[in-house]
Amino acid sequence: MELSEFIRDVPDFPKPGIGFKDITPLLMNADAMREAVRQFLERLEGQEIHKVVGIESRGFFFATLLAEHLRAGFVPIRKPGKLPYDTRREAYELEYGTDSLEVHVDAIEKGDRVLIHDDVLATGGTAAAAVRLIEAMGGEVVQVNFLMELSFLNGRSKLSGQEVVSLLQY
Amino acid sequence: MELSEFIRDVPDFPKPGIGFKDITPLLMNADAMREAVRQFLERLEGQEIHKVVGIESRGFFFATLLAEHLRAGFVPIRKPGKLPYDTRREAYELEYGTDSLEVHVDAIEKGDRVLIHDDVLATGGTAAAAVRLIEAMGGEVVQVNFLMELSFLNGRSKLSGQEVVSLLQY
Repeated sequence: MELSEFIRDVPDFPKPGIGFKDITPLLMNADAMREAVRQFLERLEGQEIHKVVGIESRGFFFATLLAEHLRAGFVPIRKPGKLPYDTRREAYELEYGTDSLEVHVDAIEKGDRVLIHDDVLATGGTAAAAVRLIEAMGGEVVQVNFLMELSFLNGRSKLSGQEVVSLLQY
Repeated sequence: MELSEFIRDVPDFPKPGIGFKDITPLLMNADAMREAVRQFLERLEGQEIHKVVGIESRGFFFATLLAEHLRAGFVPIRKPGKLPYDTRREAYELEYGTDSLEVHVDAIEKGDRVLIHDDVLATGGTAAAAVRLIEAMGGEVVQVNFLMELSFLNGRSKLSGQEVVSLLQY
């Protein structure tokens, strides 16, 4: 089964001139979902993971599935103001300006072995901020994985020193 | 295992005077997540489900897990402008004004047996809009389930004729 057959190109989203890789055809096919999970787990073989961190909000789709299979807890990283309890915040740069991510202060224990997941690796700014958040709390980032990687944006350069895995490259 | 022990009360969120039921302690405990999934599946026993619909964004946490266990596809319902492909939209009333939900036009096939999931049943407006969306596309809503139900808000009254399941009631 080729996962790439379940990714749909949508032109001019979110703005004119940008082509968006839509993963919803993959999500709505039970066999394709299962195959993606299998490939993620294969790349984690033998690794003990305590927490799977999913980045808002398309990162949530696979992060809970991976947490269940790894018998790990699931931790959401969200945009500011979305998490109800006390949070730790980390800023990251956008093309113009900055944005931030938050995680609950009790989400990671010192020494936790952590998998960070998001749907797409683009410029890498969001994932790098997530890595900084987890490491500042004493977590050890074992791997950062993505369903897709937009290789031409060179997001891996922002994640140097990390094990980076993607199932599909464009 | 008592799932209620993993729900945290956060005062004054999202605004002063409102007490928020925070599910993140449950999410970050692998055993509690597993138990919640077990209880959901128990209430669905013998039902054939083709699609599990999760409502943005806390509804995504369990919807993909339920989809995997039921060998069903997963379909996200999102706020306007978030889904990249062609969508169908449904409005619902808020205390002041209205809001809308969207689903991809190809997400539900006529005759699909559908489970709708969200984390909390409050006033029921969102869930009722999701039911209208799915039924307008020819789907059959088999059950609408929630991790928590705020019973005093009487959200079930907006879901009459539907099978409504919640694991925790407040």
